[in-house]
Amino acid sequence: MKNYVLTPGPVPVPEFVMLEMAKPIIHHRTEEFEAIFSKATEGLKKVFMTKEEVLILASSGTGAMDAAISNTLSKGDKALVINGGKFGERWLKICKAYGVETIEHKVEWGHAVQPLQIKEILKGNSDIKAILVQASETSTGVEHPIKDIAKLTKDRNDIILIVDGITAVGAFPVEFDNWGIDILIGGSQKAFMMPPGLAFIVLSQKAWEFSKKSDLPKFYLDLTQAHKNSLKKTSPWTPAVTLVIGLNAVLGYFDKIGLESLFKRHAILSEATVEGFKAIGLENFAEGCTSTALSVIKAPEGVDASLIIKGLKEKYGMIVAGGQDQAKGKIFRITHMGYVDKGDIIAVIAGVEGILSELGHKFDSGAGVAKATSILDKL
Amino acid sequence: MKNYVLTPGPVPVPEFVMLEMAKPIIHHRTEEFEAIFSKATEGLKKVFMTKEEVLILASSGTGAMDAAISNTLSKGDKALVINGGKFGERWLKICKAYGVETIEHKVEWGHAVQPLQIKEILKGNSDIKAILVQASETSTGVEHPIKDIAKLTKDRNDIILIVDGITAVGAFPVEFDNWGIDILIGGSQKAFMMPPGLAFIVLSQKAWEFSKKSDLPKFYLDLTQAHKNSLKKTSPWTPAVTLVIGLNAVLGYFDKIGLESLFKRHAILSEATVEGFKAIGLENFAEGCTSTALSVIKAPEGVDASLIIKGLKEKYGMIVAGGQDQAKGKIFRITHMGYVDKGDIIAVIAGVEGILSELGHKFDSGAGVAKATSILDKL
Repeated sequence: MKNYVLTPGPVPVPEFVMLEMAKPIIHHRTEEFEAIFSKATEGLKKVFMTKEEVLILASSGTGAMDAAISNTLSKGDKALVINGGKFGERWLKICKAYGVETIEHKVEWGHAVQPLQIKEILKGNSDIKAILVQASETSTGVEHPIKDIAKLTKDRNDIILIVDGITAVGAFPVEFDNWGIDILIGGSQKAFMMPPGLAFIVLSQKAWEFSKKSDLPKFYLDLTQAHKNSLKKTSPWTPAVTLVIGLNAVLGYFDKIGLESLFKRHAILSEATVEGFKAIGLENFAEGCTSTALSVIKAPEGVDASLIIKGLKEKYGMIVAGGQDQAKGKIFRITHMGYVDKGDIIAVIAGVEGILSELGHKFDSGAGVAKATSILDKL
Repeated sequence: MKNYVLTPGPVPVPEFVMLEMAKPIIHHRTEEFEAIFSKATEGLKKVFMTKEEVLILASSGTGAMDAAISNTLSKGDKALVINGGKFGERWLKICKAYGVETIEHKVEWGHAVQPLQIKEILKGNSDIKAILVQASETSTGVEHPIKDIAKLTKDRNDIILIVDGITAVGAFPVEFDNWGIDILIGGSQKAFMMPPGLAFIVLSQKAWEFSKKSDLPKFYLDLTQAHKNSLKKTSPWTPAVTLVIGLNAVLGYFDKIGLESLFKRHAILSEATVEGFKAIGLENFAEGCTSTALSVIKAPEGVDASLIIKGLKEKYGMIVAGGQDQAKGKIFRITHMGYVDKGDIIAVIAGVEGILSELGHKFDSGAGVAKATSILDKL
């Protein structure tokens, strides 16, 4: 059976990218590779909306999350962690590993953090050195209001805003320079439509100042080393050569279609998916704060989401992601990032309709596909 | 011009591996990928010659070197670093980053460490917690006598032997269990004939005991997490999916041809290269302690090695590596690892003969190729 990977990371990789990476390997300490590395870095700056150097790490996104903390904070520093899902939790774990004290601000899964609440917490805790948050929380499909959070930190020199943008950068605009973010992280297997294995990270001048005072030990993930080498068009350690070559191909494609068109594409796929499922009575888990990177859809009352996920896989070869922890069995998650198109969205909605019918669930059959199709006409 | 990558990492990747990795991506939290991950882990155990779990990290080899220290040692611990080249130096830098004290034992570049000297140092420093060494020092082409060094540590519970086997594991036998090594590290872009992006690391039970006492902070490179997840056929963070798929294909190939035949292949390519160059008067930089993973050849007296390297590239599209630091301009380095064969070795020797002729260097023209060819007949 043909497989349709529709998970929010890894996402389907375009054939031209896979084939680019399948070409004979080249050595990394050559002018040829340095040109590719440097072009990729320039391309990343556009997607990260910054003039600062975007660093390419051979690691998964978690490596860059680790680096964000271990390079800028010190043992005993206090950080405010916005925890509204699986990846918010990861910030807590990283802080714990490094002896960084945390104030945990819990946000109900499926909801966005309220900047006003952050403002209150900051008022009562003038010693907070960093705010840690996700731009798009992959486990819930929520977009957090980064622009508004940045307003609370950008004019202060004693606090930095660290944003996990792994499922955001490239999916929708996250304006690093304009908004005044201090650290922003991306990952290859998300909107960059690549296989996993690369992480990206950019630091503001303020964050680099923090890095000079950080007393946490690091070597492989030492961003100062990565920065120094990136300016020389290379990396301190052997880079993941083929993945960087693939990335460069993707960024060339982004240049050709334009970032606006990429963002618009995700937005339309998101709207079509959310509205399509609504038309058959399935709710959006992140209503009112929906990340356009992915759709997170609630299974109907009384239906276990894992039956939908299993059915999609077994009947149609469609791989969607389930819920984690408290959301397990309640939701399913569909990517809009990567090499997916109108046909994938129509097909997965039709697939869910088919499975729900079999399960005896009552709904307006065909309404989901019809609604989605009408919205997808905008693409 | 066709390019012939002959550097000791990255090495040429077989076409079947590149094409395997170019297949449509799969999700990592699936039975399908777990089967591949687990099969790759089992395959690695054979190459690492161990019953212990070999961990697959999404990083370059330096990531695993970092992890070896940050997971087993503590701040203020004392380590003996065998420094006989660029990668020996790296151990020093990692220790420094983590506040691990070092006793540096310098070894002349191109020479192997004497186990007797290590024995003496250990006698005078009973508080040494770890010995850090390379099995094959890529910058010099030297094989260090790991088996004999392990005899000094394996019966002691208060010291571990940490071996960077990045350019050794898969190239020649490094018997982790039999010799009593405590940590052994490999990298994808060496004898595993893969693109860079994966590192491998295995720990003895003694090393795991050390890890329980280590007070150095770590998160992304936390090997206890990697170990716990590896036993469940997965990794704690998103794995580099396509690279793991490629690795599995390579390990399947190793199974088919047999490890002995792989080791023998490197040995014959090494002998042919070394003897071939000797026949035209070029010396082996690592005489008497030659790693069969690569050949490191001295440029003739009065000839700058960079002219040979530049000539090979410009005239024949052959990419070989030069010397680093103190060996710059004095040597050139040729891989025997990866997808290279008899024709590559004959061609590069013939290429060097051609360039030396042009430079007016006197030698027995054709003798290098003839000697190499006669040895390559054994393959």
